[in-house]
Amino acid sequence: MTGPNKAPFSGVAEDLKGRAACYKQDWNHGFSSGFRILAPTLYIFFSSAVPVIAFGEQLSKDTDGALTTVETLASTAICGIIHSIIGGQPLLIVGVAEPTIIMYTYIYNFAKSQPNLGEKMFLPWAGWVCVWTALMLFLMAMFNVAAILNKFTRFAGELFGMLITILFMQEAVKGMLGEFSAPEGKDQSQPIFQFQWLYVNGLLGVIFSMGVLYTSLASREARLSLYGTGWQRSLIADYGVPLMVILWTALSYSLPSKIPSGVPRRLFTPLPWEPKSLQHWTVAKDLFSVPPAYIFLAIVPAAMVAGLYFFDHSVASQMAQQKEFNLKNPSAYHYDILVLSLTTLICGLLGIPPSNGVLPQSPMHTRSLAVLKRQLLRKKMIRTAKEGMMQNATSSEVYGKMQDVFIKMDLGGDSVSAHNELKDLKNAIIPEGDGEGKVPEVFDPEKHVEAYLPVRVNEQRLSNLLQSLLVAGCIGVTPLIQRIPTSVLWGYFAYMSIDSVPGNQFWERIQLLFITPQRRYKVFEGAHASFVESVPFNIISAFTLFQLIYLLLVFGMTWIPMAGILFPLLFFFLIVIRQHFIPKYFDAKHLRELDAAEYEELEGFTPAPTECGGDDESVRSRDAQPEYASEILDEFTTHRGELKRRNSSFRDGRLLQLNSVKMTRQLTRNMSRAPEIMEEE
Amino acid sequence: MTGPNKAPFSGVAEDLKGRAACYKQDWNHGFSSGFRILAPTLYIFFSSAVPVIAFGEQLSKDTDGALTTVETLASTAICGIIHSIIGGQPLLIVGVAEPTIIMYTYIYNFAKSQPNLGEKMFLPWAGWVCVWTALMLFLMAMFNVAAILNKFTRFAGELFGMLITILFMQEAVKGMLGEFSAPEGKDQSQPIFQFQWLYVNGLLGVIFSMGVLYTSLASREARLSLYGTGWQRSLIADYGVPLMVILWTALSYSLPSKIPSGVPRRLFTPLPWEPKSLQHWTVAKDLFSVPPAYIFLAIVPAAMVAGLYFFDHSVASQMAQQKEFNLKNPSAYHYDILVLSLTTLICGLLGIPPSNGVLPQSPMHTRSLAVLKRQLLRKKMIRTAKEGMMQNATSSEVYGKMQDVFIKMDLGGDSVSAHNELKDLKNAIIPEGDGEGKVPEVFDPEKHVEAYLPVRVNEQRLSNLLQSLLVAGCIGVTPLIQRIPTSVLWGYFAYMSIDSVPGNQFWERIQLLFITPQRRYKVFEGAHASFVESVPFNIISAFTLFQLIYLLLVFGMTWIPMAGILFPLLFFFLIVIRQHFIPKYFDAKHLRELDAAEYEELEGFTPAPTECGGDDESVRSRDAQPEYASEILDEFTTHRGELKRRNSSFRDGRLLQLNSVKMTRQLTRNMSRAPEIMEEE
Repeated sequence: MTGPNKAPFSGVAEDLKGRAACYKQDWNHGFSSGFRILAPTLYIFFSSAVPVIAFGEQLSKDTDGALTTVETLASTAICGIIHSIIGGQPLLIVGVAEPTIIMYTYIYNFAKSQPNLGEKMFLPWAGWVCVWTALMLFLMAMFNVAAILNKFTRFAGELFGMLITILFMQEAVKGMLGEFSAPEGKDQSQPIFQFQWLYVNGLLGVIFSMGVLYTSLASREARLSLYGTGWQRSLIADYGVPLMVILWTALSYSLPSKIPSGVPRRLFTPLPWEPKSLQHWTVAKDLFSVPPAYIFLAIVPAAMVAGLYFFDHSVASQMAQQKEFNLKNPSAYHYDILVLSLTTLICGLLGIPPSNGVLPQSPMHTRSLAVLKRQLLRKKMIRTAKEGMMQNATSSEVYGKMQDVFIKMDLGGDSVSAHNELKDLKNAIIPEGDGEGKVPEVFDPEKHVEAYLPVRVNEQRLSNLLQSLLVAGCIGVTPLIQRIPTSVLWGYFAYMSIDSVPGNQFWERIQLLFITPQRRYKVFEGAHASFVESVPFNIISAFTLFQLIYLLLVFGMTWIPMAGILFPLLFFFLIVIRQHFIPKYFDAKHLRELDAAEYEELEGFTPAPTECGGDDESVRSRDAQPEYASEILDEFTTHRGELKRRNSSFRDGRLLQLNSVKMTRQLTRNMSRAPEIMEEE
Repeated sequence: MTGPNKAPFSGVAEDLKGRAACYKQDWNHGFSSGFRILAPTLYIFFSSAVPVIAFGEQLSKDTDGALTTVETLASTAICGIIHSIIGGQPLLIVGVAEPTIIMYTYIYNFAKSQPNLGEKMFLPWAGWVCVWTALMLFLMAMFNVAAILNKFTRFAGELFGMLITILFMQEAVKGMLGEFSAPEGKDQSQPIFQFQWLYVNGLLGVIFSMGVLYTSLASREARLSLYGTGWQRSLIADYGVPLMVILWTALSYSLPSKIPSGVPRRLFTPLPWEPKSLQHWTVAKDLFSVPPAYIFLAIVPAAMVAGLYFFDHSVASQMAQQKEFNLKNPSAYHYDILVLSLTTLICGLLGIPPSNGVLPQSPMHTRSLAVLKRQLLRKKMIRTAKEGMMQNATSSEVYGKMQDVFIKMDLGGDSVSAHNELKDLKNAIIPEGDGEGKVPEVFDPEKHVEAYLPVRVNEQRLSNLLQSLLVAGCIGVTPLIQRIPTSVLWGYFAYMSIDSVPGNQFWERIQLLFITPQRRYKVFEGAHASFVESVPFNIISAFTLFQLIYLLLVFGMTWIPMAGILFPLLFFFLIVIRQHFIPKYFDAKHLRELDAAEYEELEGFTPAPTECGGDDESVRSRDAQPEYASEILDEFTTHRGELKRRNSSFRDGRLLQLNSVKMTRQLTRNMSRAPEIMEEE
């Protein structure tokens, strides 16, 4: 582990060495996957483009159109292309995200309020913020600051997650209510700003927002549906949200023609080839028109942005490299901060908002590549097994050949670890004896390979590059993007907000506060976090209430007109609180349960095989049931792509009973699901 | 069983004899329940009043205001009071229902189209229809026609249920779309009928309808919620729908004042003391102003109404007396048809639409009285057990005393049947030996009495009378009812439509047609009807397709302007089809599964203890888990109050596994739920 006390650039150097070794491979693996690489590419492109468009609209509203969707798309595309080519961890997806929008809104409001800056000097001043931010990020990379990331515990991560959730919902509600009144800075005498048309616009806004929210939430469940074929269900589950945006946009064109144009209100974004858009790109030459005092004042927001980016970028990267994905290539936290410093500088000079690592797209990216790799591995191993069985090879020969295929395709692996990971598969082929007999009849390659295949990810750079190019392509189709009603985006914000809470233990603990004592047993019946059993309820309540009050404090801070920009300070202050204040009031044993320091577990971010917690059923991929590939990964990740850490065991005597329930359930599933796999793939 | 070949009035006489014997008891039991009788009374009142108001609005729309909510409420109240006092089965709830509305719409449209009748003679002519209907019902009662009810199989009942479902949804959609255009017969030049206000009205209609639908559906799930105390959850689950009607009506008053009054459109109903309402009551004196030819023509619709009423009234009564309710008092199908004949005549002469037995309110009534009885029984038996245990009585003494209490409160019962039904309770008190020892320590009166108490219903007339009086009271608060937006009622219709499908096996089979073959195993995993396992899929498909085509035929018929009135004929034709046509194409064994003739099982409607189907877990009340009383009854009834007939067992080897799952699940529930009951009640 590279501590902060090591020599400057030692972290970056180590990262570079590690990634350079697999750089060629990163491209080869992408191209050798053939057209199949398009599935994860499109998946991530849609997951990335829709929020970037939504953030662009939010930014446009908050900066009176100074920055719009064109700029957020441009930043996401430019930074994405740079990161996919020279970045460290190619699984990390970058884009313009909520913290950037919030900071840029503060910057804009500050600039507007200063007579010496004004709206005109907003972009040059923001350019200076980026310059300072880039410098600070550079220093962070240089002094190996990423090593302190493990000081951030779940406590801070959850708070940050919940803050984003609340801000999304606030944006959705504000946006929806805003549909009932005329936008600022517009000619209020226009006919569409008469009360009746404003009201029609507002009501349509409610219907479209709720429609997008409800149908998007419903589309998530498509994979479990009983209807449609496997690929139809997957299509709706994977692309449901962009599909719903398109569907509701289409519906907005079915309104009666008597309604004046402009109702419903649609995305305000200038075409990229209009003069208004073009002026941004030359912001660099105005940099020194900013009064010197303001140049230095830009250090304050820059410190906040640098802190947020450092945190966000690294956590997104960690999430994309969770140990259950079994990644083979090394991480590059230090080096990626350096690349982030470069892209932030470029964006600042181009007058566009910078991008950083985004959640949930980054872990979603890894997940989709795991599905791809699974399909490739599965196909080859089944073919090998069938060939062996046709030639009447002994069971140990068949297994040996399959292991060879696995090791060959899994380039980082060796026979010891492969042997370990394929143990269950081996047991299925060689149930007893020395393996000199034939493969037993009950062995079905399709079924058992699917069941016992360990998780592997197709690590490469191509999907990231391609999706960035597609985002760039979006700028060319701005006229199409302008057709999206703004209310569709408010619905999308509400969806993002609701979609981000499952898996957040803080949210679960808040809910727990409101559950009647008599019904708490129901929590035990379902999958639940282990703290529910091991920590007394009073302790959970106190801890949660403290966290909740802190959250409200941070949220309240974002409402303060100018000083609000300092809200990230409260997050960094959490490191102190967590290390010195909290342990005085809470038992170390309870804290370990409530605030399991995930980042500490990662031991300097190398995906070393630490103890995985034997009773953590949902993450033991080898126990996964034979199912449609992406469903397997669904089982241990939340909608946002985070890993579920769940404990469904009872303690004492009940453990036994529940295990028997689990076992019989698995048996029935095994028996009844097998035909599906054979027919569907 | 009283067959149609028996002497005239023999069925009525037998019914009268049976009910007369318990008539006094019917009142005593009501009054001796004290204030607790108000819970089922209010429950049924709300379940009854909201649809009657909704049907009134539908009728008002379809008859251009000739009949409105005032008349549907009046009919429900008058017929309800009569039925609760002189009716046979006091558990049966009567009210104006959808078939009546449909028939009255036909009658109105026909009258309007005839120059010799016109809108003015609509009510007198409808009066004649009622006179003829009453006569036919009288003849049916006289000739014991109710005995043929067992010829109607599930096949016909399901078709009828689905037709009502479709008609509800059609009404909801038509009503919602109607909010976008000006109502017929109104002054179109009013400002609220300008395009923009019509459009605002329409959009508000969409929001209110969807809001009512969505929140009502959500309120159904309240009992399973983890939040709130037991009574709060029960309140929302039991009264959610009327609460949502009130809530959305209140919301409709929060609109900005710039919107002209009349938007959103509200219930159109004249006040009962206005001249327009008063003219109805003297319709009897206009009866002979109807031209003689039309008097006789009224026989055609009368035959249809009589058939529908006979069918609807008897099925509602059967549903209220399902054998799992363990009713002690006899049925009165023949006599109730006679009473229906009387109330139909009265309504006809008063110029109001007649009422008949309604679903789902009738079984809901029985169910709520079962909860009441359970509470009463439980309290006394637990007190007895505790007293005995305090006095250190032997376990057989304690059990003896509890059995005495049970027999005494369960007036129809004798010690043999009580002994049989209380077997599990006895085993819990006297686990082994001769019962001379003390009650074992593991015996907990609260827990075991709750678990092993058989279902008993508080059979009486008071709740029915009181709820009818409350409906009568609604007429007095017409000014309040006028405040309900019409769109709230369209949402309510959509709710009724969606709420009526679960439990309809026909609907389940339609769904099955669309489930991909690979996912059919999922049907087996959940609770499912037994036919899914025992009948080949092709046979199920063919049977369902035939039923579906027949349904579309009937639905199509309702669209035919005049001849549509004959649509009930298609239902009676089903008896012929089911008896002579279907058995030629389908195997008798399969038919028994697909079209289990429930009515035949009932053996002439006496609740004789026939075999209860040992594998039908949901109806074995003695196996019910210790839970909040109304939840127990939830377990074996659908939202509509029908009994669930479910089979969740696998055949072959899987049976064993699932049983062990079930057992362990029950054990954990026993262990974890016990505290709740002790604390909540």
